[in-house]
Amino acid sequence: MPDTFIPKPFEVTTGPLPASRKVHVAGERHQDIRVAMREVALDPSAGEPPVRLYDPSGPYTDPAAQIDIAAGLPRLRASWIEGRGDVERYEGRDVQPVDNGLKPGEDSSVQQFDLGEGYQPLRAKGGKAVTQLAYARAGIVTPEMEYIAIRENLGRAEAFNQPRDGQDFGADIPDFVTPEFVRDEVARGRAIIPANINHPEIEPMIIGRNFLVKVNANIGNSAVTSSVADEVEKMVWATRWGTDTVMDLSTGRNIHTTREWIIRNSPVPIGTVPIYQALEKVGGEPEKLTWELYRDTLIEQCEQGVDYFTIHAGVRLHYIPLTVDRVTGIVSRGGSILAKWCLAHHKENFLYTHFEEICEIMKAYDVSFSLGDGLRPGSIADANDKAQFAELETLGELTEVAWKHDVQVMIEGPGHVPMHKIKENMDKQLKICGEAPFYTLGPLTTDVAPGYDHITSAIGAAMIGWFGTAMLCYVTPKEHLGLPNRDDVKTGVITYKIASHAADLAKGHPAAKLHDDALSRARFDFRWRDQFNLALDPETALAYHDETLPAEGAKVAHFCSMCGPKFCSMRISHELRDHAKAEAEQGTQAEAEQGMEKMSERFQEMGGQLYVPKVATPED
Amino acid sequence: MPDTFIPKPFEVTTGPLPASRKVHVAGERHQDIRVAMREVALDPSAGEPPVRLYDPSGPYTDPAAQIDIAAGLPRLRASWIEGRGDVERYEGRDVQPVDNGLKPGEDSSVQQFDLGEGYQPLRAKGGKAVTQLAYARAGIVTPEMEYIAIRENLGRAEAFNQPRDGQDFGADIPDFVTPEFVRDEVARGRAIIPANINHPEIEPMIIGRNFLVKVNANIGNSAVTSSVADEVEKMVWATRWGTDTVMDLSTGRNIHTTREWIIRNSPVPIGTVPIYQALEKVGGEPEKLTWELYRDTLIEQCEQGVDYFTIHAGVRLHYIPLTVDRVTGIVSRGGSILAKWCLAHHKENFLYTHFEEICEIMKAYDVSFSLGDGLRPGSIADANDKAQFAELETLGELTEVAWKHDVQVMIEGPGHVPMHKIKENMDKQLKICGEAPFYTLGPLTTDVAPGYDHITSAIGAAMIGWFGTAMLCYVTPKEHLGLPNRDDVKTGVITYKIASHAADLAKGHPAAKLHDDALSRARFDFRWRDQFNLALDPETALAYHDETLPAEGAKVAHFCSMCGPKFCSMRISHELRDHAKAEAEQGTQAEAEQGMEKMSERFQEMGGQLYVPKVATPED
Repeated sequence: MPDTFIPKPFEVTTGPLPASRKVHVAGERHQDIRVAMREVALDPSAGEPPVRLYDPSGPYTDPAAQIDIAAGLPRLRASWIEGRGDVERYEGRDVQPVDNGLKPGEDSSVQQFDLGEGYQPLRAKGGKAVTQLAYARAGIVTPEMEYIAIRENLGRAEAFNQPRDGQDFGADIPDFVTPEFVRDEVARGRAIIPANINHPEIEPMIIGRNFLVKVNANIGNSAVTSSVADEVEKMVWATRWGTDTVMDLSTGRNIHTTREWIIRNSPVPIGTVPIYQALEKVGGEPEKLTWELYRDTLIEQCEQGVDYFTIHAGVRLHYIPLTVDRVTGIVSRGGSILAKWCLAHHKENFLYTHFEEICEIMKAYDVSFSLGDGLRPGSIADANDKAQFAELETLGELTEVAWKHDVQVMIEGPGHVPMHKIKENMDKQLKICGEAPFYTLGPLTTDVAPGYDHITSAIGAAMIGWFGTAMLCYVTPKEHLGLPNRDDVKTGVITYKIASHAADLAKGHPAAKLHDDALSRARFDFRWRDQFNLALDPETALAYHDETLPAEGAKVAHFCSMCGPKFCSMRISHELRDHAKAEAEQGTQAEAEQGMEKMSERFQEMGGQLYVPKVATPED
Repeated sequence: MPDTFIPKPFEVTTGPLPASRKVHVAGERHQDIRVAMREVALDPSAGEPPVRLYDPSGPYTDPAAQIDIAAGLPRLRASWIEGRGDVERYEGRDVQPVDNGLKPGEDSSVQQFDLGEGYQPLRAKGGKAVTQLAYARAGIVTPEMEYIAIRENLGRAEAFNQPRDGQDFGADIPDFVTPEFVRDEVARGRAIIPANINHPEIEPMIIGRNFLVKVNANIGNSAVTSSVADEVEKMVWATRWGTDTVMDLSTGRNIHTTREWIIRNSPVPIGTVPIYQALEKVGGEPEKLTWELYRDTLIEQCEQGVDYFTIHAGVRLHYIPLTVDRVTGIVSRGGSILAKWCLAHHKENFLYTHFEEICEIMKAYDVSFSLGDGLRPGSIADANDKAQFAELETLGELTEVAWKHDVQVMIEGPGHVPMHKIKENMDKQLKICGEAPFYTLGPLTTDVAPGYDHITSAIGAAMIGWFGTAMLCYVTPKEHLGLPNRDDVKTGVITYKIASHAADLAKGHPAAKLHDDALSRARFDFRWRDQFNLALDPETALAYHDETLPAEGAKVAHFCSMCGPKFCSMRISHELRDHAKAEAEQGTQAEAEQGMEKMSERFQEMGGQLYVPKVATPED
């Protein structure tokens, strides 16, 4: 399909972030591995090497990459997947009008992604499990695992000489991540590598308590709003600001087509909630759902390359009465769909009764479970109640079943929880679910601030991340009010990068502090450009600075708008340091402290100036 | 002075928040007490009484009040202060050109506040302490104390039948606040009532671990930016969104005049950092500061009515070398001013050596100490270091001295602290400073997000508030980058109201949850207007909702833009509840759970509808 077929608005944001370039670190065991990282160059006056940052943005931020949305991203993992010799191409399921919410024979107005003549999806040969968990248990270190080890090690070599500092609540964060460590964590079920064999475009990443805390951003069209182009751009945009995975929660028409475009162009794992599409196929009436239709939807999405499925198999029939006296009932869409189905038919949840069959399907494509918390609390009043924890027990039971089938599992968590009840969620989840990774939405720590729920929830997210949650699902300012636009997606991602990074710091991730320290040194040295460039959001930092002091000269000034040029506490601190250094040359610190009178004289001799021109210091 | 003299831009934001009206609750002991609260009316369909909220916004949100900036607010406390018989008017200090940064004889271009012909300030008679602490120790329950008891009790009567729920880390939060409890907490030094006898306009409030967590907003002009009118409006604006105190950190010219306008129009206590003005008086050169000049500045501000002073008396000479190896040195303005003075003269900090004289001054006006943390960390790297904790020990020592003089004290805290080091700050402060109230800036939990430091710090603020901090100093999005504008002030205040409220919830404040529950019920009942009106920021909540669904009908719709009209989890929950209720009429819950088959039939009989029109339920 020629480029010209792509409608004009179908463009995505590309180009590097300020002062950043894409670097690639080569693998050792697997020679074709090239792990992408972002390198932020500092001002020469810093005398410091560039700062390397974890970078999930894929080729879009690499000026050397040729971006062609119509062709999709390069299939980075294709040779790894096929090289294992355990998969085969087969005649996949035909795409049907109903997959896109169309009537039989109805044509879609939406441009289709061209998979190429005769394209066939992959699946496991002969009932094998082709999951990273199966390989890990078999002692195989996959290229994905080595990629992840290199990716997660970012900065750890530099951090080696710093003392470890943090409170990890029993986590097992290594000084250095080896490919073998990755394999072991996956084998133990403590981490997952969401990586469908039909999504070879991803740059492998890992979700687990002993790795960097990850962030997920939700996108997706709804009944009327947003187009395919918008959703692809939202995915690219969200990864640009640092999201580690993206969930496509589309609910309107063209779900299949939208998802195809997203997956083919996504460098990060894509998650979905298949019951949403299944519900569309039955006209939005939960009672009409059947296992057969759901099963067919799972296969449809497995073949497309979805990397993880939220499956609300824990919403069991007899738990539903437990939600009746809640202030906000069932607030999970999936949870309420299943609750309604259960009540309408007065049967046990078909996702629960067919769980082993679901495992059989998912292991053939390496789709990971995200076991949904359909009964999560929707308000402070309902936090940590019987319904919530009853479901968690079932999720623990299902985790064991999934593991029996070599399927990777993470567990979804709440929701709305006041601060003093957050830790109980983490402690119970670890115990009940055998340390499978926890993936929480927030939690929101109060209900009183609609319009600011990215903040009410970032508080809870940072804390639960610290306690051990492996991935944080973002909440945007529009939560409870409307659908997030592009700005909301960015605000949500940056806010959750703050929460996840604050958690990494508090857990004692050996290299997390390097980023903070680099930015703090830039701040202390008045390297304004470096401050902006090292910020999670360089554009906003620069814009805010320029609101008060727009002149170019202010970006090299040794002051800021807060105290103005006449007085600056940072400047005085520099002086104190220079002063102490000069003094230290005269003798020991203790002697220096004693010779106070002399210090005073020297200070006057030095001119008593606020600012002494910067000279090379031992740190430089 | 006729109104027409007030320049046109000198207008402030007035009028009630949506659906809100000002109510006044009368005192019992003191008949003239009328405690202001905000009452939010709910939709009649709620069948619920209006929700009362704590309201520091003063008369500006009361349509019945006549606002006249040129005249200042009514002097609510005047008769209480003078009625105690221990104060006298006297010929105050003359305002001098240098107080406003003017040369001798130079005229200010700024409109002066007219205090009235022959105005004289108040001070204590004959060396007495006229502080709330002195009265409390003498067993006197002041009108201020009763006002505060009524104000803090908001909602507790309704909460009485709910079980207490929270983790308070050894705080002593009563079910109900009596005036005697307020007196006792003040007498024990565990709470302060900042209330200068020359600031009779304030509505009394309290800062202490066993009361609601409070928020402070900083305003203030700098060298070039912002005018007097802007600062008065910022003060009014900040209280409108809920700040409990305001610090005027002005540093440019016209400091005295700006402060006069602010104080005369402020319903909340005003704090300052007197060393800032003192520094202006010596042309910005710290080494030229003298005790005499500082003392004169203190008296100037005591006579104006400043309610609390940040005083960096803990920055002792021998602590300064401890900061030399820090990543970001000394970042407190006050701290660096004093450090520079100490080094320049090689003498002990004059605020430390003259501390008893400072107490003698402050007790004559009832100005409270906010003992400044001049050596607070300015980066994650410097958190909880020797310099910081050495200063804290000195603040503990000074607390005892202040208490000896019957002067009220709170203690300032950091700053930049990763999550795992926050609790140590609270624990040490309580122990070292004899449970004097803690007042912290954030803390920021990471350094990597300039432009979003309201969020990096709200995480730390919520946590330290939970642990026991009594007041949280806000941080705006412009922190580290520029001066906050009106929008930034609002964002900062709302963000900190989130943090303080999340802390109240987690501490187990008996009534805090009522607000969350009222909003959650509104959410569950699709009372959109009530949701907006109960939000901390009703305007933003409404605007965000209307971005996707602007039609008036959408505000009574039983769905939102997130799932659209066809499917809504909340709607299904309603149905489940109605279903269960119908069932419950048939027998006990246990029986209901057993009769599953019957339930299914009934569900179908009821039409299997998503939404059953709301009827009165027991909760209603």
